[in-house]
Amino acid sequence: MTSTSHSPVTVLGLGDMGRALATAVAAAGHPTTVWNRTPGRADDLDPDRTTEATSVRDAVAASPLVVVCLLDADSVREVLDPVADALAGRTLVNVTTTTPEQSRALAAWADGHAAAYLDGGIMATPPMIGGEGAQILYSGSTAAYEEHRVVLETWGQSPYLGEDPGVASLYDLALLAGMYTMFAGFLHGAAMVATAGISARAFAESAVPFVSAMVPSFREYAAVVDGGDYGVAGQQSLEFSDLSDMVQASVEAGVAPDVVVAVQGLIRRQIDRGHGKDGFARLYESIARPTTTGAAR
Amino acid sequence: MTSTSHSPVTVLGLGDMGRALATAVAAAGHPTTVWNRTPGRADDLDPDRTTEATSVRDAVAASPLVVVCLLDADSVREVLDPVADALAGRTLVNVTTTTPEQSRALAAWADGHAAAYLDGGIMATPPMIGGEGAQILYSGSTAAYEEHRVVLETWGQSPYLGEDPGVASLYDLALLAGMYTMFAGFLHGAAMVATAGISARAFAESAVPFVSAMVPSFREYAAVVDGGDYGVAGQQSLEFSDLSDMVQASVEAGVAPDVVVAVQGLIRRQIDRGHGKDGFARLYESIARPTTTGAAR
Ligand SMILES: NC(=O)c1ccc[n+]([C@@H]2O[C@H](COP(=O)([O-])OP(=O)(O)OC[C@H]3O[C@@H](n4cnc5c(N)ncnc54)[C@H](OP(=O)(O)O)[C@@H]3O)[C@@H](O)[C@H]2O)c1
Ligand SMILES: NC(=O)c1ccc[n+]([C@@H]2O[C@H](COP(=O)([O-])OP(=O)(O)OC[C@H]3O[C@@H](n4cnc5c(N)ncnc54)[C@H](OP(=O)(O)O)[C@@H]3O)[C@@H](O)[C@H]2O)c1
Repeated sequence: MTSTSHSPVTVLGLGDMGRALATAVAAAGHPTTVWNRTPGRADDLDPDRTTEATSVRDAVAASPLVVVCLLDADSVREVLDPVADALAGRTLVNVTTTTPEQSRALAAWADGHAAAYLDGGIMATPPMIGGEGAQILYSGSTAAYEEHRVVLETWGQSPYLGEDPGVASLYDLALLAGMYTMFAGFLHGAAMVATAGISARAFAESAVPFVSAMVPSFREYAAVVDGGDYGVAGQQSLEFSDLSDMVQASVEAGVAPDVVVAVQGLIRRQIDRGHGKDGFARLYESIARPTTTGAAR
Repeated sequence: MTSTSHSPVTVLGLGDMGRALATAVAAAGHPTTVWNRTPGRADDLDPDRTTEATSVRDAVAASPLVVVCLLDADSVREVLDPVADALAGRTLVNVTTTTPEQSRALAAWADGHAAAYLDGGIMATPPMIGGEGAQILYSGSTAAYEEHRVVLETWGQSPYLGEDPGVASLYDLALLAGMYTMFAGFLHGAAMVATAGISARAFAESAVPFVSAMVPSFREYAAVVDGGDYGVAGQQSLEFSDLSDMVQASVEAGVAPDVVVAVQGLIRRQIDRGHGKDGFARLYESIARPTTTGAAR
């Protein structure tokens, strides 16, 4: 039974994100049942369209679609295990942040209780939910995705990444890895220039346009990685620039060089393997194909 | 004597970057003298405005402003040491990539030979030189900067960062540290999703808009760093997300976690120091103020 704009929806968990999801679903016209471990978190939700259930069991029974937005994988199991029987025939959409293995384990658990499972990775903050920029990545049951798409789209863009329930989490964590690494790189640069009395704010004024201009070259690196030919003409070679200057300048400035040293380590592994004439994109190989003597643990 | 649009300019080094600099200066109307260790690199420069000198000494003698664009600090010393006496009374603008300490040493060397010294950090590729997006950062002699600004501006934006001749290099390396770290983060993410059969190109299509949307938050992090109060409300705390999920997912996917582990190490150092309730910007402290027991070497 495909969801319509009037299908009931249940949301378990009314933290900042759960409240944003419930608000958007109710605003789109769905009768919405909510539940939170600590009661009283539903007070600012639209009372005409939202019902606060007093037990998880009642909340699950209220809708064919049950959305879970709790702290972590453990809290999801803690909340759902006691009501597993009530999930039979329903769809569980888990948007709690979990690792790919945890998502797969939850999918197997749901399958064991005759529930369809869809995993979501939220690429947005609570205020963004329901707006243009919000994106939630999904993977798991295609049928569940198709069936409830109208609900999922009340939150934002909803790309579907395939049947493997771990892929949405993997993709989510991969984007966040890029983001946090970039932030660490910015803070590293800010710490370097601070030693010359330059404020982080002043540094941000040049770093924002400079880094923004560099982001689209992800596409060029990606083409090189997919093509597998790293010997592209016109690039600086790894052996020409193994980031020694950057590490040395960091150390001379009294700044912890850890992040830059980590990147340098990936470069050096390729130089050691005889690929020093190749361009920067080759460090992908150090990450994707660590040798047994490498740093993969 | 302030440079005008007809003041002669000398460029030492006709690699890809030196040729781009000489081309822009000649195009702006300056009589341009060039020199390169290996002759014959001047063939595609405008013959009406450009003269190829047969010795470094002749090249230096031709202009009050001598621009050096060689491989590294060692090659600069190798080329200039034998003609040090000829530099007296002239201005040396060194745009060769050097560390801050090397820039300071070159400035002291120039000072010892009665030459004014200006250090430049090129934030552009050769084809960008002379265009809108090109930027070269300068530090060193203010007088030299003011005197030759008309020449410097033929290449692009020319911000001046102060008297310390090391600052332009420091700033340059700080921006590049941010850039390379970000690229490594992107390649890390691409390696993660590749384990689920997703191409780097497909990943780039979501990473470019996602990361682009995150870059402006450098300004918010910078305001927190400058303000020194890391306990800003509404942020995820370090102890809530110490990137364990990302490290675990990387390891489970068989991907070398080095870069993410480095960022995690900086986070954990702050948690260990009792700042786990603070937001991500606090990892700046791990970089800027490494303890003696920390990773700074
Ligand atoms: N906020 C964001 O920007 C954002 C972005 C992307 C993804 N996410 C993910 O979305 C999920 C929720 O985030 P949030 O911002 O809403 O977090 P939050 O504001 O801290 O809320 C956490 C929620 O989990 C509940 N909870 C925790 N442990 C529980 C347990 N053992 N049993 C039952 N309930 C439990 C809390 O209930 P109580 O009220 O009873 O404590 C609360 O409803 C997390 O996995 C987060 O990683 C958040
Ligand atoms: N290209 C870029 O995108 C870029 C961007 C920012 C900064 N930079 C910096 O600009 C500088 C030049 O870069 P480039 O791209 O022009 O490099 P390049 O094409 O490799 O040219 C190197 C130049 O240095 C000369 N050279 C090397 N060792 C020498 C020595 N011992 N004595 C005399 N000359 C020597 C070479 O002369 P021969 O022809 O005789 O070998 C050549 O002219 C570097 O410091 C680089 O880091 C470049």
